[in-house]
Amino acid sequence: MATSIEARSQAVAETLEDRIARTRAIDTDVHNDLPSLNELKPFLARKWHPWLENGGPGVAGRAYANTGSGRMDDSVREEDGLCAGDPDWVVEQLMKKYRIDIGVLTGTMTGTSVQHNARFSSALVSAYNDWLLEKWVRPYACYKGSIHLAPQDPEAAAAEIHRLGDHPGMAQVLMASAARIPYGQKYYWPIYRAAVEHNLPVAIHVGAEGTGIANPPTSVGYPSYYLEFHSDHSQTMMGHCVSLVSEGVFEEFPTLRFGFIEGGICWAPYVMWRLDRIYPALKAEVPYLKKLPSEYILDNCYFSTQPIEEPDNHDYLLQMFEMLRAEKTVIFASDYPHWDFDNPLTAFSFFPSHLKRRIFVDNVVDFYGPRIFASHGGR
Amino acid sequence: MATSIEARSQAVAETLEDRIARTRAIDTDVHNDLPSLNELKPFLARKWHPWLENGGPGVAGRAYANTGSGRMDDSVREEDGLCAGDPDWVVEQLMKKYRIDIGVLTGTMTGTSVQHNARFSSALVSAYNDWLLEKWVRPYACYKGSIHLAPQDPEAAAAEIHRLGDHPGMAQVLMASAARIPYGQKYYWPIYRAAVEHNLPVAIHVGAEGTGIANPPTSVGYPSYYLEFHSDHSQTMMGHCVSLVSEGVFEEFPTLRFGFIEGGICWAPYVMWRLDRIYPALKAEVPYLKKLPSEYILDNCYFSTQPIEEPDNHDYLLQMFEMLRAEKTVIFASDYPHWDFDNPLTAFSFFPSHLKRRIFVDNVVDFYGPRIFASHGGR
Repeated sequence: MATSIEARSQAVAETLEDRIARTRAIDTDVHNDLPSLNELKPFLARKWHPWLENGGPGVAGRAYANTGSGRMDDSVREEDGLCAGDPDWVVEQLMKKYRIDIGVLTGTMTGTSVQHNARFSSALVSAYNDWLLEKWVRPYACYKGSIHLAPQDPEAAAAEIHRLGDHPGMAQVLMASAARIPYGQKYYWPIYRAAVEHNLPVAIHVGAEGTGIANPPTSVGYPSYYLEFHSDHSQTMMGHCVSLVSEGVFEEFPTLRFGFIEGGICWAPYVMWRLDRIYPALKAEVPYLKKLPSEYILDNCYFSTQPIEEPDNHDYLLQMFEMLRAEKTVIFASDYPHWDFDNPLTAFSFFPSHLKRRIFVDNVVDFYGPRIFASHGGR
Repeated sequence: MATSIEARSQAVAETLEDRIARTRAIDTDVHNDLPSLNELKPFLARKWHPWLENGGPGVAGRAYANTGSGRMDDSVREEDGLCAGDPDWVVEQLMKKYRIDIGVLTGTMTGTSVQHNARFSSALVSAYNDWLLEKWVRPYACYKGSIHLAPQDPEAAAAEIHRLGDHPGMAQVLMASAARIPYGQKYYWPIYRAAVEHNLPVAIHVGAEGTGIANPPTSVGYPSYYLEFHSDHSQTMMGHCVSLVSEGVFEEFPTLRFGFIEGGICWAPYVMWRLDRIYPALKAEVPYLKKLPSEYILDNCYFSTQPIEEPDNHDYLLQMFEMLRAEKTVIFASDYPHWDFDNPLTAFSFFPSHLKRRIFVDNVVDFYGPRIFASHGGR
């Protein structure tokens, strides 16, 4: 009993700095699986059940097949074939094994952002968010959830943020990087307004490019191979980044933190320099901007490490990270259990320890805010 | 007389090395203007004249207006308002003033690559190529032409290359970077086959993104501003670069040189690293590849300097150039007379002289081949 009381007083007394100091890593991209859409039924209004009962919703899937393996070999449980489908299993296989203290769950549902039926998509992500809280977040102190959205309907998306935005188990708002319209445009501002009200960052995640109502994966059309599809992912990120800055999103919402998840990192210096170079000549187009484009990127944007680029010469990557002020802008992601998982114990071995610390913990806390440590129950 | 004979013998005796040594700069991107489509009439079969007579072809133009100025202030001749429309004027204003020995003409017609009517487009570029030879190339030793193509019809495009490919006044094949289909795909291979037969490099040039039959300028749709449109130009380049490598274009045509003109440079290290990172896992998808993706890029691709990125810290640009082996892959372009013209006398002041020399001359000769020095008449 004494121990428990002691522990509780310690917890009360612990400052944010203390908590940060004892954190080893926060993972911004853990793909927990939903084994079956039927699990969402208890969370979904009855009127939508027919959509699930007839074999599930028509999903505009992608035709780029990963000829390697889509997932890590040791991420599949032999007994039932579940891959990251059991929270306890992920605690063992990811969190403990790789010494990660908090994992932000990014699921397998971001493609909902570009499905044709906006109403059903909105209902589906709501059900998913409730399922996520019940099955993964509430019972486990080590997991935080993402409020999944259907940005095809920004009004409904904003309502979903208001519904769950104060839940201490939710760490961010999440959408696909695949899109029909660049994310800077005013069409999406209700989402950012709601996120900022709840002090939640907004993250976008790759993978649904070219599906549903999204544009083709590149601005020159559909590539042939997964090799291309994967390499081209940065382009949706770049288009959104340029749009967010140019439309003045970060002037309108100066406290908004925006995360680019799994879209690569080393394209960002190029985008900053290109925008900065022409901005002085084109200021009249964007008179509401008050800073250099690169300043908005450095102040408001975060880039996740997975997949981290791996030039043979490690100095190149460190130079690139300096150009992007990685000590402030880069956040760790494992992408568990996907095939190109970055092992956090080895992938960053040549990074100076201060920078590694910033990427694994401090920057991630800057991105999510102190709420990432908020108690939400769970063991 | 003696002087003239002496000069001629000198010319005969001059080796390629000598010629390179006395060259100060070769400009890969000089936008000579066509003052009126009517000038093409004498070169266009009569059946197409109605298209020009009714006010010119319907052109799917772009709606992104440059709120700065589209052209350099001193590039417009007061008497007649012509902008780079008179070859003699360009000799004075560009070639002499900035000490450029050879200028490769890139014109104002690359948008033809994505016009809807492939037959008329093919006829139009043929007429344009003949006009270019007659008005700009033949009379001037300092200009070289680009064989403009309508890649919407690869068979006709290949025929056009065969028609003009041995003309010593033509330096390259030229297409828009805007496209409906990524340029690596087999659909376009007749163009590359013909180019290689005539030992001509293929260049693509930005500016028509999102027009005609092209895809939107980004993979997330249409941006709002010219600031974005301009910054997003790299994305068509990236999509094509990834496609050219992944489809095996440089295995099928190992001697093909491919030029990315006016699409920026500093995105290329990112693309190389990203492709190299996932290629080992996805080899089975592209079994015809025999080298790392980055090796094809470094061996076969060239990137033009304009608009050169300008980070405050010059070291960053030099680091980026090292990552891309700029001493082999980067070629000089002024983009005359466009508004963001890079003044060759100042824009590279902090570059080591060896690297500057490679960019201004040696790499350009590697890209075009010795034909860039071939005599084609003219003063």
